[in-house]
Amino acid sequence: MKGIVIALGGNALGDTVASQKKAVEVAAKTIADIAETGAPLAIVHGNGPQVGKISAAMRCAVAGGMATEDIPLAECVAMSQGYIGFHLQMAIESAFRSKGIGRKVCTVVTQVLVDLEDPAFLHPTKPVGAFYTLEEAGALMRETGEPYCEDAGRGWRKVVASPEPKDILEKEVIGLLFRSGVVPICCGGGGIPVAQQNGTFETVSAVIDKDYAASKLAQIIDAEQLMILTGVDGVYLDYNTKQQRLLRQMSVSTAESYCEKGYFAQGSMLPKVRAATRFARCGGMSVITSLEAAATALKQKKGTWISLGPGDR
Amino acid sequence: MKGIVIALGGNALGDTVASQKKAVEVAAKTIADIAETGAPLAIVHGNGPQVGKISAAMRCAVAGGMATEDIPLAECVAMSQGYIGFHLQMAIESAFRSKGIGRKVCTVVTQVLVDLEDPAFLHPTKPVGAFYTLEEAGALMRETGEPYCEDAGRGWRKVVASPEPKDILEKEVIGLLFRSGVVPICCGGGGIPVAQQNGTFETVSAVIDKDYAASKLAQIIDAEQLMILTGVDGVYLDYNTKQQRLLRQMSVSTAESYCEKGYFAQGSMLPKVRAATRFARCGGMSVITSLEAAATALKQKKGTWISLGPGDR
Repeated sequence: MKGIVIALGGNALGDTVASQKKAVEVAAKTIADIAETGAPLAIVHGNGPQVGKISAAMRCAVAGGMATEDIPLAECVAMSQGYIGFHLQMAIESAFRSKGIGRKVCTVVTQVLVDLEDPAFLHPTKPVGAFYTLEEAGALMRETGEPYCEDAGRGWRKVVASPEPKDILEKEVIGLLFRSGVVPICCGGGGIPVAQQNGTFETVSAVIDKDYAASKLAQIIDAEQLMILTGVDGVYLDYNTKQQRLLRQMSVSTAESYCEKGYFAQGSMLPKVRAATRFARCGGMSVITSLEAAATALKQKKGTWISLGPGDR
Repeated sequence: MKGIVIALGGNALGDTVASQKKAVEVAAKTIADIAETGAPLAIVHGNGPQVGKISAAMRCAVAGGMATEDIPLAECVAMSQGYIGFHLQMAIESAFRSKGIGRKVCTVVTQVLVDLEDPAFLHPTKPVGAFYTLEEAGALMRETGEPYCEDAGRGWRKVVASPEPKDILEKEVIGLLFRSGVVPICCGGGGIPVAQQNGTFETVSAVIDKDYAASKLAQIIDAEQLMILTGVDGVYLDYNTKQQRLLRQMSVSTAESYCEKGYFAQGSMLPKVRAATRFARCGGMSVITSLEAAATALKQKKGTWISLGPGDR
């Protein structure tokens, strides 16, 4: 069995300690159902609300005179990997025990390589951290030189680049665990972004899309399937309209053409379809579905599947 | 080769992002020198200042209205494992590359089992988190029911229990990595304390001594040596007096007798000697020395060595 990489969306995590503990229990049951088949498994997860909270708390401590230094985004991502990974591994281990599954789980703090020449650095688009008023954001922009933008009527937030994942620094260890039957929880929040600078690796203030990171991981560790789990049971055309229809199966070229033509919402379904399509382009099977439908989806009865079709070769 | 567990003290980490990045570079060089021999290696580290900062920032965010919930200590420990592990692995990987060492490094988020019946829970002694005035501490005590104490003239802090590590939940994965030549960074801050409750594991508000956790880990993964690295080059009698003299070698019974007679400072050298002695009692070789002397200490030329002597059997 070549194994499965599962990418968990924000709905699998919740956004407080209590809601996260509850949400990961549901995710863990699905993961246990899939792990029971014996297939090698790796788990990737998002960290949007969590890293936002951590980074806001760190800034709050500086403003309140409780701390002398702000903690950079990369270090906040590392903290969020520890925090979310801990809750996930606790819940998955518990679900494994309930089902008598003897497999082990391991949270791997993961660095993901990005390229400083990535055009994404010219156009930061990803809001992170605390919300500020226009005046506060203006003062911070002048102080730090970093860009801020208005986020959906909720206030002003810092924006960072969302570059492409080029490599996963811990790939050998993740691959070793994956092939050994251990379930690694890795690339949390898309990974801690690092770039090569002066012959070594340095942290970068950026956010890597976790579905792109999961797709890259699935290619690198030679998985057979990529499951992108989100709040809806599959990919729809004309989503949220009377005409909405579920796409059950797409070839790579069909998916690519839908993406290009703007059929999917930016920052929502579009990166998921793109991540799934990239892995399918390399010969993998990708599925986008909900956490609830995931175990059934594996029998190809649910979700949206993307794989190489006759027209793709 | 049966391998070495290395426990890094606070002096190997620093207490700001910048000082930590610098300090771990020094630690990484020592670790690379030892890793070059090919011996299996695992790294355990403290987290005192770091978890204190994280937990204070989280409380600050609540007080400042930026967050609605305080983050429990166990989750703060998980965050500190991600944060410190990240810096350590980055520095060790870089030191390995410089020396042409092909070994990999992996930060493993680690849960350590404690017993709720541990007498330590009756007498919380370990100060954690932010410093408060007497008035603030009083209000918090009334609000939360948790104990606070005055900490060395610096203010009032919450105190938690420091129970014994009974088991390491990720022992199989850590053992697998250790035997595979990967260097796991694990049991950070003594591990995330969990206890068995209602047939499952629950987090506990406690702090496990990282040297005791390292000693337990060395026993469980069947290491040959335990290196406890700290700010001094070895264990002294009459330390910091004109009569101070370095103990080069101790049998288990000698070390135990010195501990009982109060020769070593509580909360400082005492737990290190105890941790080293426990591992030696099980047949291992323990050494307590400084980061700088560590590589030479391994050739038994430096530090204080504790192992079973003729009188111990």
